[in-house]
Amino acid sequence: MMMLADIIADLEKKLKRDRFVHTRGVAEVSVRLAKLYGVDEQEAELAAWLHDCARVYPTSALIEECVRRDIPVAEIDRQSPILLHAPLGVYLAKHVYGVENNAVLDAIAYHTVGREQMTTLERIVYLADMIEPSRDYDGVELLRKLAEEDLSRAMVAAFDQSIAHVIHGRGLLHPNTILARNELLMNER
Amino acid sequence: MMMLADIIADLEKKLKRDRFVHTRGVAEVSVRLAKLYGVDEQEAELAAWLHDCARVYPTSALIEECVRRDIPVAEIDRQSPILLHAPLGVYLAKHVYGVENNAVLDAIAYHTVGREQMTTLERIVYLADMIEPSRDYDGVELLRKLAEEDLSRAMVAAFDQSIAHVIHGRGLLHPNTILARNELLMNER
Repeated sequence: MMMLADIIADLEKKLKRDRFVHTRGVAEVSVRLAKLYGVDEQEAELAAWLHDCARVYPTSALIEECVRRDIPVAEIDRQSPILLHAPLGVYLAKHVYGVENNAVLDAIAYHTVGREQMTTLERIVYLADMIEPSRDYDGVELLRKLAEEDLSRAMVAAFDQSIAHVIHGRGLLHPNTILARNELLMNER
Repeated sequence: MMMLADIIADLEKKLKRDRFVHTRGVAEVSVRLAKLYGVDEQEAELAAWLHDCARVYPTSALIEECVRRDIPVAEIDRQSPILLHAPLGVYLAKHVYGVENNAVLDAIAYHTVGREQMTTLERIVYLADMIEPSRDYDGVELLRKLAEEDLSRAMVAAFDQSIAHVIHGRGLLHPNTILARNELLMNER
């Protein structure tokens, strides 16, 4: 694996400035939440730094970049290509940055739409992505509060936020987000 | 099949007053939309009168009423038993009221969460259920307008409304609703 300092330097060179600032924020929040919930802090930091590494490509190039690496592209990905920055990020984490830790790779893979049975690490990166300091939208403060209190309730609120955002933009809802949210609510009962 | 006048009389006897008034409203709107979109008006009226026929049972009895008739009960139905009034309604339409028309039975079956590839009749009953005159919520007027202009756009707006309502009540979202909404948005593009 490339050393973290070199990964960060590479990302700083390749990502647009605001994307890099966002990524640094996700890393800071992920490490803080990892401490709080007893998750390996280095795994959290590595996953956070790399979660958006595929955003070095413009959204319009993501389908093509996935196809030429034999990364599966589903119908919903063709309609909403931005979703592909997650699996492409996993690919780059493995093949460019040499990451072999599956817990870290899964946190990158599921940071966008979530899935059922998310690990604590996956939840942390998902939430950190939504609440890092440069994020600013109605409800972000509540999400920041919940993330420090109850990861499961925070995830439901984060999915609700995400679903409302997608509906507002007339976007497609990913079935995995719905299944993940339903699972959390069922477990609450 | 029982004659429609007798079906209506039976429903008037068994349903609570406000449920019966709602049902009559759904029938009126369904027939109006059927005329507008060239769908068989009698099928629309019959489906509308019967769409909530299983609401003669309290929600708390729906799981048991389905189980003893061998109607499949999924995990999401156990968590949100109200969903079962749709398949139980199909059963009663068939076995109590003698309905054999599959287009009508499907309009009853899919009036609650929808599905991909909904027929015009199914869309009409789904929408009529949400916009009949006694319905009163933010956005109902827009939905009434869209229903007379463009069934597909109206269905997206109806699903958006339904999803927002479920989220507000911390309820489970049915995957078929999400797939149906995604399909309509993809076809718009």
